[in-house]
Amino acid sequence: MKLSQYFLPLLKEDPKEAQIASHRLMLRAGMIRQESAGIYSWLPLGLAVLQNIERIVRDEQERAGAVALLMPTIQSADLWRESGRYDDYGKEMLRITDRHEREMLFGPTNEEMITAIFKNFVRSYKALPLNLYHIQWKFRDEVRPRFGVMRGREFLMKDAYSFDVDEAAARRAYQRMFVAYLNTFARMGLKAIAMQADTGPIGGDLSHEFIILAETGESQVYCHRDLLDMPAPGDVDFHGDLSTHVQERTSLYAATEEKHSEAEFLKLPEDKRISARGIEVGHIFYFGEKYSAPMGASVTMADGQLRPVHMGSYGIGVSRLVGAIIEACHDDAGIIWPETVAPFHVGIVHLRPGDSACDAAVAKLEALFTARRVKYLTDDTDERGGAKFACMDLIGLPYAVTVGPKGAASGMIEIKHRKTGEKKEMPLVDGANFIIHALSEAGAI
Amino acid sequence: MKLSQYFLPLLKEDPKEAQIASHRLMLRAGMIRQESAGIYSWLPLGLAVLQNIERIVRDEQERAGAVALLMPTIQSADLWRESGRYDDYGKEMLRITDRHEREMLFGPTNEEMITAIFKNFVRSYKALPLNLYHIQWKFRDEVRPRFGVMRGREFLMKDAYSFDVDEAAARRAYQRMFVAYLNTFARMGLKAIAMQADTGPIGGDLSHEFIILAETGESQVYCHRDLLDMPAPGDVDFHGDLSTHVQERTSLYAATEEKHSEAEFLKLPEDKRISARGIEVGHIFYFGEKYSAPMGASVTMADGQLRPVHMGSYGIGVSRLVGAIIEACHDDAGIIWPETVAPFHVGIVHLRPGDSACDAAVAKLEALFTARRVKYLTDDTDERGGAKFACMDLIGLPYAVTVGPKGAASGMIEIKHRKTGEKKEMPLVDGANFIIHALSEAGAI
Repeated sequence: MKLSQYFLPLLKEDPKEAQIASHRLMLRAGMIRQESAGIYSWLPLGLAVLQNIERIVRDEQERAGAVALLMPTIQSADLWRESGRYDDYGKEMLRITDRHEREMLFGPTNEEMITAIFKNFVRSYKALPLNLYHIQWKFRDEVRPRFGVMRGREFLMKDAYSFDVDEAAARRAYQRMFVAYLNTFARMGLKAIAMQADTGPIGGDLSHEFIILAETGESQVYCHRDLLDMPAPGDVDFHGDLSTHVQERTSLYAATEEKHSEAEFLKLPEDKRISARGIEVGHIFYFGEKYSAPMGASVTMADGQLRPVHMGSYGIGVSRLVGAIIEACHDDAGIIWPETVAPFHVGIVHLRPGDSACDAAVAKLEALFTARRVKYLTDDTDERGGAKFACMDLIGLPYAVTVGPKGAASGMIEIKHRKTGEKKEMPLVDGANFIIHALSEAGAI
Repeated sequence: MKLSQYFLPLLKEDPKEAQIASHRLMLRAGMIRQESAGIYSWLPLGLAVLQNIERIVRDEQERAGAVALLMPTIQSADLWRESGRYDDYGKEMLRITDRHEREMLFGPTNEEMITAIFKNFVRSYKALPLNLYHIQWKFRDEVRPRFGVMRGREFLMKDAYSFDVDEAAARRAYQRMFVAYLNTFARMGLKAIAMQADTGPIGGDLSHEFIILAETGESQVYCHRDLLDMPAPGDVDFHGDLSTHVQERTSLYAATEEKHSEAEFLKLPEDKRISARGIEVGHIFYFGEKYSAPMGASVTMADGQLRPVHMGSYGIGVSRLVGAIIEACHDDAGIIWPETVAPFHVGIVHLRPGDSACDAAVAKLEALFTARRVKYLTDDTDERGGAKFACMDLIGLPYAVTVGPKGAASGMIEIKHRKTGEKKEMPLVDGANFIIHALSEAGAI
């Protein structure tokens, strides 16, 4: 992509409304624009990141056996009356009346609807286990939306719902999602820790939040230091027993404020106690028959008996993750994207558009990158070099390649690694291959 | 994908509410479920088709130079008051009041918001031409939603918006979308004809609808027969002059009912006159300064003068296309997906799950297909053979491969081509390669 044909509206000044780094950087880097309180347009650079995150989430959900569908944003109020949650949600639920005076709502979550779908179609235990997920825009009418996409009103969420014949099977479904979540966040370059959590309006008695430690986190969290060094489970057999992976992590203390026990925490050796701020990026629940019983979602068991299914639900804040990743990955100059979610892998700083040797070198780089599915953004504008370098630092592409008249004459390019700041000169083809190799190692191409 | 791990809730009976083939077949094939009037869940098979269509639309938009962003579903009423359209839309617009009593709406289209974004960021003619598009759920509160996803209330639409310095440049932008649309629909196996159309509430004086002929179409259309045989422009240079491609098509008579002139039509030779029903799958508009002037979206020209930009907008009914393709591609037994949009490319009918020779043959096929990115659905359930074949015909995958005990013993498979009904026996590897080759020729893998 050529910058001259792209739409990247950078802001020169720090926006006043932004209180945290991710909000400030997303506005400065032309990723989002606020349309109403807590409601954003995703500009091209922001959308590219959002799509990359969505792709990783889908990939890991499907690896763990979840099947994608898509429920609508608008739901009927009657459906929510069946579960008894229509009134519970209060003013956070955006209520709507259509032209025929029917009461509708913009879905804040989908337990009711998925239960209705299940009940409509599934009759026998033979269809289980089943885990259905979707990635859809939700709406929660927060009193005070803030921190940009971290606490918006219209937000993109992945929610999965598992259906099982009994509690033991449902706990295995819970474990599959537990492991899938750790892998998902690790692929995005994040260290997420599963912590005991409150179930809130979803209900149930077993729940974990997946938390990223960051100074700007909205919640206070407590955990054992060893959890920080534990790698994600990685390539596991999702048909097999995953309880070891889960126990390894849940046997160490980790709790959100609501579930925190100071007495338990103080039993940890002092140098193992971590008390910090955290950002919730995922939340999983086991709630058994809470929805299936009142809504009559039952299956016929092998013995002929009809029994309500055991359910769980599993959320990931897809749009919030864009902000969370920036909170975890930035410096004073701008964003530092992990390779797997970067909107482009490489920025090509073209210092002399119109100079035939430079144009040819840039074209050659672009061809090498295209052949290997490396996404590049070429700054072919007539800005000064300094402004182009600052732009690359701000938008945080993993690698910046500079092509100028001197290098073009001698066949050299300069490569800058955004994360370390390290720079080196290399012959053009070697440099391109070096980047391609590094991106491939990082699982980005 | 194994059917036993998938969610494909087929209906045995024809649903009473379905008046047209696509609605009936989408319900029967477990592609959608109605949640409220005109509001659907997309079940896994339906979502897979929707995503394939979306991918083709994105690909062709970007080839033509459009840049993706994503605007939210919920918009502020004030924005629509600026253009004067807040009242024009009447009851079709879903109006919402949030918890702070602010007037909002679920966007039926995005001319106002994109103009506000443009105005916010673009100051100079140098940034033009610019074409920004998104694919987002829209809501139009139809009095009588009907025909399934063909006229739903919540629907997925691609809308692009072009910004140019003057009318001549804007007409070139219009031509790029005109050509991109013909290519887009052709890639989905559809024959779409561009017809002169009314501009309705969008405004402007130049507009074409892209129409697919089908008996169940909602509009009466008239065109020259030669348009039916004209292939899509294909691989053109979008930086070059496209007027020949457009003129070739617009010089022949083609009009929707609103723009129809019986006198002009009767001038065609009688054997060239086509009067038929049509389904609108795309609609493009040039409306000049209609939004940019009242909303103050201007740029500074080379001579220093400030001038309102010239705009066009370009819609494709992404969710409607699923229904439109079925209307064009089905028979009495079910759907016949074009290869490029099929939810899976191949169905593997496993006649004897548990039989080791059959299991091995199926596993080998799956491995061959996976290696070439061919998407397959293996029916590994304990249904009878007859039911499995009927299921494959209903869901309409381009190829069905049957693996049974006899064939497995002799290393043979049976391949059925859904479209022609033609069957042939082939050695397993040859058969797999035959399918891979055919899918590759069709541009599906």
